[in-house]
Amino acid sequence: MAETAPPAAGTAPASGDALIAMVQDRNRRGIARAMAIAESTSDGSRDFVAAVHRLAGHAHTIGVTGVPGSGKSTMVRALAQRFRATGRTVGIVAIDPSSPFSGGAILGDRIRMNELSGDPGVFIRSMATRGALGGLARATLDVVDVLDAARFDVVLIETVGVGQDEVDVVQAAHTVLVVSAPGLGDEVQAIKAGVLEIADIHVVSKCDKPDAMQTVADLQAMLKLGGIGRGDTTWAIEVIPTSAQNRDGIDVLVDAIDRHRAHLRSTGELEARQRRILEMRIVKTAEDIVRDQLGGRRREALHAVLTQAVAKDTDPYTAARTLLRDIATGL
Amino acid sequence: MAETAPPAAGTAPASGDALIAMVQDRNRRGIARAMAIAESTSDGSRDFVAAVHRLAGHAHTIGVTGVPGSGKSTMVRALAQRFRATGRTVGIVAIDPSSPFSGGAILGDRIRMNELSGDPGVFIRSMATRGALGGLARATLDVVDVLDAARFDVVLIETVGVGQDEVDVVQAAHTVLVVSAPGLGDEVQAIKAGVLEIADIHVVSKCDKPDAMQTVADLQAMLKLGGIGRGDTTWAIEVIPTSAQNRDGIDVLVDAIDRHRAHLRSTGELEARQRRILEMRIVKTAEDIVRDQLGGRRREALHAVLTQAVAKDTDPYTAARTLLRDIATGL
Repeated sequence: MAETAPPAAGTAPASGDALIAMVQDRNRRGIARAMAIAESTSDGSRDFVAAVHRLAGHAHTIGVTGVPGSGKSTMVRALAQRFRATGRTVGIVAIDPSSPFSGGAILGDRIRMNELSGDPGVFIRSMATRGALGGLARATLDVVDVLDAARFDVVLIETVGVGQDEVDVVQAAHTVLVVSAPGLGDEVQAIKAGVLEIADIHVVSKCDKPDAMQTVADLQAMLKLGGIGRGDTTWAIEVIPTSAQNRDGIDVLVDAIDRHRAHLRSTGELEARQRRILEMRIVKTAEDIVRDQLGGRRREALHAVLTQAVAKDTDPYTAARTLLRDIATGL
Repeated sequence: MAETAPPAAGTAPASGDALIAMVQDRNRRGIARAMAIAESTSDGSRDFVAAVHRLAGHAHTIGVTGVPGSGKSTMVRALAQRFRATGRTVGIVAIDPSSPFSGGAILGDRIRMNELSGDPGVFIRSMATRGALGGLARATLDVVDVLDAARFDVVLIETVGVGQDEVDVVQAAHTVLVVSAPGLGDEVQAIKAGVLEIADIHVVSKCDKPDAMQTVADLQAMLKLGGIGRGDTTWAIEVIPTSAQNRDGIDVLVDAIDRHRAHLRSTGELEARQRRILEMRIVKTAEDIVRDQLGGRRREALHAVLTQAVAKDTDPYTAARTLLRDIATGL
């Protein structure tokens, strides 16, 4: 069931330890409450988030990206069902504003989630992209930690492949799938160009369509040119044709994901990748702290230098350095 | 002429003051060199950027956004020609990866810039979005300052309407145009939804197409619902049909931009907006300094806490706070 309206962080009646225990028991209300705390930026939430983080690190995280219309939401649903059929529990975090999980009403094609809702082995969480004020990557990864701490075997992170923050989030997964659909038109393909290079596995959706094999061939030709991928030259990037509607190719795709996971473990690339992900998280968190402080506790200090900057008594760079020194004294 | 390969910042033979004088004389080589310095993140560049910033503040900045295929690049070109016809000088900063100014080869439709190149009253600068590592907004606004200091009357900032950084950049303009094209399809329209609300003026392109009037009517209906815009309720947002190809409506659009500019000046909204823009710049610059330091001078400190974080001896939030204190001591 999609938990779209969790209780606010402030209303949590459970203590931190009790809530952690609820999360570890995979209690749905506990998970939703823990996610609300993870999403918030209040100082008080950070100890709890750190405790959750200590419990995380077991789930295999899979980023699924592609432009709106590529069929990635349908793909995420089909993947979740296939993972369930192999006995694995599945968490889903959707941060695509056009996704049926998080608000597909924009496209008017909200897909009924009947097959997944009601299954205690599945937890779906949608993230708001508007109003996240740049803290999207940090908040999403803290929410993924909650699902990981709740011992979901697989966590699928669905994000539209546009915007640096969205690309950063998907790159923070162990395995990255980029979904391409045939016949989307030049405009959409151009938007997509930026994410093709981060795929561990290319998925071509809607292969019941006649021009799908051309899309497969185009991607294979691109891969032959080389020079793309996430720096792991020992992994041969595959192109997998699927039709989520007909459930064709989904088993092949899950096999490829499992082979990629085994590859990451056997080569030491998993540790290397986890280190890179953690580095990104730390840098993003540092940026987030600066932004949060300037929007909150240090708002007056910001307004003081801003008045100076308006009068040209200072410049943005000098003002920013002054504020960073000010923030650091209070940390 | 599009200056796509300016000399590197380090090779500048001119002193800061001499280079500033070249910029003020609207010397093209001087402008290109100043922009390269503005784009760099070296500590040594900051005094120069601050000096340029002190000279800026006179140009009217116009953000032009819209999804790929909306026709905004053609619109920017038509606007530039119209401004030139009214005797005004024009700077253009294009940060759209699908723009003909900055690399439209992706779409294979690079538009010949013959009409604008060679005109000393026009300066076009393309910005790379890839590899900007999140510093795009800061770098773009520093480059706009160079054009402003060079006394270009109008600076057009073209950016694709996806990605938080791109939306931030366009919101940093005095007047924001959102370009919509008829018949782009649901997928692309969904991507666009996020930027519709930041328009001061809606421009419908390609109004030689039969379904364009429906797009105009849809936007007008949306505006009647209210609750959108940039917080300035005294300005009536307009919808202007154009055909850049036929040069239809471009004069009407320039009139609307000029009316918006006069409105900003007469109501005090210009000062309010400039203050908000400066606030955003300062916050972004503070974030950029953190990222730059962690990628450069403080790289070793980052790696030290990262090793602790991998071992779960610390968490991302605590690690980030440690690094911020460390950065501040060196500022």
